[in-house]
This record gives sequence, C-alpha cells and structure tokens, in this order.
Amino acid sequence: MGVSSISDKLFQDKPVLYLGDTSLSGAAGYLAGLMTAFAIGFEYVPSDQTLSSELPSVERKLFVLSDYPSTRMPRAVQAIVLAQVKRGAGLLMIGGWESFHGHGGDWDGTLIGDALPVEISGEDDRINCDQPALVLKSSDHEVVDDLPWNVRPPGIGGFNRVSVRPGSATVLLVQTFQVFFDAKRFEFTPRDQHPLLVLGTHGNGRTAAFMTDLAPHWVGGLVDWGDGERVKSQAKGSWEIEVGNHYAQLVLNMLAWTGQLSKVQL
Amino acid sequence: MGVSSISDKLFQDKPVLYLGDTSLSGAAGYLAGLMTAFAIGFEYVPSDQTLSSELPSVERKLFVLSDYPSTRMPRAVQAIVLAQVKRGAGLLMIGGWESFHGHGGDWDGTLIGDALPVEISGEDDRINCDQPALVLKSSDHEVVDDLPWNVRPPGIGGFNRVSVRPGSATVLLVQTFQVFFDAKRFEFTPRDQHPLLVLGTHGNGRTAAFMTDLAPHWVGGLVDWGDGERVKSQAKGSWEIEVGNHYAQLVLNMLAWTGQLSKVQL
Repeated sequence: MGVSSISDKLFQDKPVLYLGDTSLSGAAGYLAGLMTAFAIGFEYVPSDQTLSSELPSVERKLFVLSDYPSTRMPRAVQAIVLAQVKRGAGLLMIGGWESFHGHGGDWDGTLIGDALPVEISGEDDRINCDQPALVLKSSDHEVVDDLPWNVRPPGIGGFNRVSVRPGSATVLLVQTFQVFFDAKRFEFTPRDQHPLLVLGTHGNGRTAAFMTDLAPHWVGGLVDWGDGERVKSQAKGSWEIEVGNHYAQLVLNMLAWTGQLSKVQL
Repeated sequence: MGVSSISDKLFQDKPVLYLGDTSLSGAAGYLAGLMTAFAIGFEYVPSDQTLSSELPSVERKLFVLSDYPSTRMPRAVQAIVLAQVKRGAGLLMIGGWESFHGHGGDWDGTLIGDALPVEISGEDDRINCDQPALVLKSSDHEVVDDLPWNVRPPGIGGFNRVSVRPGSATVLLVQTFQVFFDAKRFEFTPRDQHPLLVLGTHGNGRTAAFMTDLAPHWVGGLVDWGDGERVKSQAKGSWEIEVGNHYAQLVLNMLAWTGQLSKVQL
C-alpha cells in the first residue's frame, strides 16, 4: 500500500481535523458529538496538545479550530494547514476564551489569523453577556437560510469582538440588549451589533469565523435552540450530548459549507 | 485526641460538604472556586461517587447538593444529613440536569427532597431556554437585597420547574420570554414565571432551593453578572474561574444565609 492510498484512506475516514475545546471529556463533546451524529469523520486534538506537522499533512476537507491557542500551532504547521486551504480545504474558527484574541487565543498576527475573514483584535476581545444577546440574520446565505431566525431568534452568552475584512460576507450578527425592570415590567433597550458569522475564501478554500462558542458558556441558549425532537449523540471517548435541533442544523450547515462536505459526506 | 476534638477540627476546616457538579476539573470549579475566594472551607464529593456515612457524620454548617444524583446517597446517609439539618445545619440544593427531578437527579420522594422548600416533580422538570429568561426579585430578603435586580436583571439558560411548598419564601422568580424579529426590531413577549430561589426551614436548620445552576450551561449570563472587577479564583485541584462580581455576591449570600456562616466564617 503506497503513501497515496494511505492518505486516501485517512481522508475518507477523517475529512475533518478538529482542534481544541479542551478535551473530549469536556467542551469538545458538543462538536464531536454532532459530527458523530452527522457521520462526519474527524481526527481530534485537545487544547493542551501542540499540533505537529503529521496530522495537518493528511489531506483534509476541513480544519476546525475552537479554543485552540495559537501557541499550540507552530508557524510552519500553520503554513501546512493554509497550503491545504489554498488548494480547497475549509478553515473554520469558532469563538471562545481561547479563540481569536480571547484570553490566551492570540491568533492576531498569525498566518491562520490572517487567512480568516475577520480582523482579530490585538487585545482581549471577550464580550460576556449577563443580559440578553440575540442572533440576527443579516443576509441570505445557504448556511443560514433554512433556520427560523425571525420566528425564534436564539440567545448567546458571549462572543469575541472582531471586525469584518473587506470582501467577506457577514451573514449573522449579534444584537446586545440592556434590560431594566421597573417594578412592573422588563424594558429592553437595544445596544450594540457585532458580527457573529462571517464567511470568506482563501485561495480555493472557504473560510468562516463564528464568534460565539458551540459549547457553554458562550453558546448560551443557542445550544438548546429548537422546536422539535432533541438531538442526542455521543462521540467515541466522550459523553452524551442532548441539544436543540436548530442548533444541530446550524452546526451542520457551517461544517458542510466551509468544508464543502455536502457531496462527500452528507 | 478524642473524637470530639477531631470533629471540632474538621468542622473548623470544612464547615461545608459540597456534593456534585461532576468534578473539580469540570463544573464544580465554579462553586469550589468561589468558596475558595470566600475562605469557606469545604469537603468535596464528585457526582460519580456514592456518599458514605463518614463525611456527613462530621459536624457541618452547610450541605450543598448540585447535580448530585439521589442514587449516590443511600436513604440512611440522607437521614444522617437531615439529622444535622434538624440540629441547625443548612441544606442547599442547586439546580441542573441531575438536580431536583432533572434527568437522573430523581430527588422526588426522597428524604432530602421532602426536606426542601419546594415540591419536586415526578417527571423530567428541565426547562432549557433558547430565548431570554430573566431573573426577577419577588420579595425583600437579606439573600438578595444587596444586588441590582431592577437596574441590571441577569439572564439564565435554564432551570428545574418545581412548585413552592406552603410556608416557604419565594425570593427570586424567572420570567421567560418569547422573542420575534420582524425584520426591523426584536419584539419581546413575556411568557411564564417560575420560582427560582425558595427558602425554608427544617427543624432548626435553614433550607434553600435554587432552581438554575451555578455552572454552565444553565447559569447563562448570571455567571458573568457584574459591573465591577471580575472575580478570579481557583480551588485546590481545580482550574481558574473568572466570573462576575454580582454573581459571586449572590452565591456568597446563599451560602452564608443557608449555612448561617456569617458569624463563623466571613
């Protein structure tokens, strides 16, 4: 069996390389559980392990980084990832305290950071929302069009504050609110809007930046977003998740679009 | 050194017995971190360990159960806990998927469940909020009076649905909302109110039921509730938390009132 057939097999089995979200026994249980439910094969690297050149050298359809500190990915390894993205793989960064700038993410000024469709801050970009923050669709796009944003907008718990790079498509925003209670009723005052899901390209590959998290606590009510049967799943080596059906659909849409997985996997 | 002096020493060091929230490397990091910040000594038992009679036989000021399944506490051990509560210790149950009835909590029909100030459902009582749910003060009480409920009501992500037992004091409610987006603005419609913090007594002891969680994901925005310097802390054997100052104050108030800790510890 030659190298190309080994790569081919690995590609078939594990088209996604998923980095971060602490560990499969922790926050990574969400995305890993969903990919398991969708029958999307993935290779996983926990947040405390440095990425060597081996795993990103295998041909992939999609690289997902979520709460994976930039210090865990040497510049030469980032270059290997980006070479695949230029050839057509997808690159998705999901928000969190160790994503974008965050508190220890520090992706600003890196090769990966420069390939994303958003400009990452040089300082702590974490916005924690103790009052409501609701998601708003800002443009039509296949990633979001099959979901009930108007009828049932979901809440989130926090996000990384970034700015959109020219030429990128902002498809979701987050609207924050200030709420008062005047002894009879709650009064909601809209405050700020920030980009929440931004899409772009890098060479032949698609890129996406999702500024909230897919795991608690920033995911907020989004993890339970749904009106139908709850989605239950469990990745190998992880714990059983139970999440909302709309949340699951949104995650699937983001993975499928960014990784162009639809024809291969779904 | 006689038995009484051993008990006395343990009481001095560890006035709180804290059960549940998975493990110190997981969700228990929040409450354990806060108790560490407040210099409240505690003994900890993870959710997957059965409680033997030894730890609750040591004299305590407060028992805290949070996502600790009733199957982990044999009836005879529950009786030991309640004997202490009758003599003056506090009993606090914090909500979650494995609290009250939940999904595997199953505290209805137990000795501990019967001693709480709320009636626990015989079926799944979990309410996951994908849209805003805000906390509302419903009566004046020292547990809640020093916090800005009207100026800055915090959100939560979910709660156990219980009913209040006659003679108990409901001091916090949760108000759920249905939200629409009409292409120009978000419209908030109030839906249901449910008890969120209920206080009572059991013999000479104080009891409290807090129906949301102190850890993600149900804690929601409450974990970040604050307007001042963030509270950072780390329990021994756990990870570093960073939370809102009002959240920390609320937790301290609940522990101090229920366990009558104020004169001893704070």
